[in-house]
Amino acid sequence: MPPWQGLWVLEMTEDITCEQAAALLRGWDHILVLSHTSPDGDTLGSAAALIRGLHRLGKQASFACSEEPDRKYEYLFEGIPHHKDAIRHVVTVDVADKCLLGSLEREYGDRVELAIDHHGTHKEFSEKKWVEPASASTTEMIALLLETLGVKLDKPMAGSIYTGLTTDTGCFRYRNVTPRTHRVAAQMLEAGADGGEINRKMFESKSRRQVEAERRVLDTMEFFCEGKCAMAFVPQLIYRETGAVESDLDGVATLPRQVEGVILGITLKERESGEIKVSVRSNPPANAAKLCEKFGGGGHPGAAGCSFPKGTMQEIGKKMKEACKAYLKEIE
Amino acid sequence: MPPWQGLWVLEMTEDITCEQAAALLRGWDHILVLSHTSPDGDTLGSAAALIRGLHRLGKQASFACSEEPDRKYEYLFEGIPHHKDAIRHVVTVDVADKCLLGSLEREYGDRVELAIDHHGTHKEFSEKKWVEPASASTTEMIALLLETLGVKLDKPMAGSIYTGLTTDTGCFRYRNVTPRTHRVAAQMLEAGADGGEINRKMFESKSRRQVEAERRVLDTMEFFCEGKCAMAFVPQLIYRETGAVESDLDGVATLPRQVEGVILGITLKERESGEIKVSVRSNPPANAAKLCEKFGGGGHPGAAGCSFPKGTMQEIGKKMKEACKAYLKEIE
Repeated sequence: MPPWQGLWVLEMTEDITCEQAAALLRGWDHILVLSHTSPDGDTLGSAAALIRGLHRLGKQASFACSEEPDRKYEYLFEGIPHHKDAIRHVVTVDVADKCLLGSLEREYGDRVELAIDHHGTHKEFSEKKWVEPASASTTEMIALLLETLGVKLDKPMAGSIYTGLTTDTGCFRYRNVTPRTHRVAAQMLEAGADGGEINRKMFESKSRRQVEAERRVLDTMEFFCEGKCAMAFVPQLIYRETGAVESDLDGVATLPRQVEGVILGITLKERESGEIKVSVRSNPPANAAKLCEKFGGGGHPGAAGCSFPKGTMQEIGKKMKEACKAYLKEIE
Repeated sequence: MPPWQGLWVLEMTEDITCEQAAALLRGWDHILVLSHTSPDGDTLGSAAALIRGLHRLGKQASFACSEEPDRKYEYLFEGIPHHKDAIRHVVTVDVADKCLLGSLEREYGDRVELAIDHHGTHKEFSEKKWVEPASASTTEMIALLLETLGVKLDKPMAGSIYTGLTTDTGCFRYRNVTPRTHRVAAQMLEAGADGGEINRKMFESKSRRQVEAERRVLDTMEFFCEGKCAMAFVPQLIYRETGAVESDLDGVATLPRQVEGVILGITLKERESGEIKVSVRSNPPANAAKLCEKFGGGGHPGAAGCSFPKGTMQEIGKKMKEACKAYLKEIE
């Protein structure tokens, strides 16, 4: 075998189906499930539900993520061990790119045997992958997988799956919702998920400092391109003056797009490291992922992001404004 | 027959089932469907879907409401006539009380043959009523009714039903959502409803003046009862200074309850007439309807309202604060 052929084989990712993924998992034990960095309700809900399902099948399974999940997700992981066992197999959930493993990339980036993901922008890194961009959330896929594995859902599993459904669809609000999304939601409520309580935790519970910080962000909003674009800024100053922390402002990315006529809503967040994180939300015909790809980022058509390790907020803001103008010309 | 017996018969409302309601409608023609005053997505979506269904069955059916619906609901009524025909039968949808017919009460208040409603606080006024408090929205009931009538849904009907589902559940967020709510939503998407677009119109599209007005309302927020209650004020001044109109601030009633720890969120709106409209949103164990009933209002356990024809905002605010304190003692 010529050397390039071995290399080529190593680099190929095999596409598999839900049934094949289930067959793989049936044959495995000592499984580590990895979530992506800046973990959200979908990657965490997927991991929690899958791990509980594997436990139900009598397998050892544990969880790891490069960052500590926000306190509001604690209920997902009650009783689930952080990775400790001898690990024989590594699975990622909702991870669209190896680099999104964060600090765990070095240890596990080349050991992932199965990637389960719903991102259309998924960049292959695993041995096998089951990727379904038509799924509104990765937990929607996990629901199918557990059904295929013959796992009877309990309340914690159902709650975890519901959490991913609701957080990745803005509470069933966005265009990514399909009839199947609603049917899976119905099944999860029947299996014991407390939808009202989960949604309250995910969307309706804001601390006073968070309310104050959001109000401050609204004050920064600027409009350009004849009102088709809006941009909001989250400088570190806002955190310092309100006592808010980064996760308090997870929701602000949706604010600029909410304004009538805006098809590209941009939010710039200054991180403590000085890095500028850009979140883009779009309405058709604009495509947030297309805009972010120009800066090495990605995501979904309606919601995407990119980041800039260097530069002031003003500089990055100017750069993004120019990119928006150019992009609007492209699509007009 | 003694005179009191006739009176008694007149005053009784007969409870009927979905099937009986369908049978009635099958036998009728020239039907007027009435929505409640301050019309929302559920009463309008119910009316629009029912009227279209009746048209499909070859019947004359038309619509009336004491107030002009907000422009954002226009899509529901394309091609539906305002009442004009000779009217032989009157049906109300989502109307919990005769007085909610507003200026139409005098003409139709005593002529309603069928009331279709999902409010637990429904006060009988019609000859027959089909009331299902377990339904998240009245459109959820209309979906069943049209199915029972054998009407095949088209895109406008499905969109109308979806509109009521999503607006009365805060986009599938609240505790009133059941598995059936999600299943009906799935059916509506399959029948052509554009959920993403409807939700954008209902929840995500704010004018700049609306964003500014909301920001101003946030500034008025006060906390009391150790942070268990929050109160926001919408004086006429805000409308004057931002150019916002009343319907621009429909959503602010949910803001006070969003703050962590708040179980009673109160919003006072000053109307042009000087009347003070109070909206209450609650989290368990508080019950918004119970609080509002003390002032002759009503609604759902999580969302209710009452109004005061006289008094300044400060006076009503003080009165509501005292009522909140007393109510919290009751339930503690």
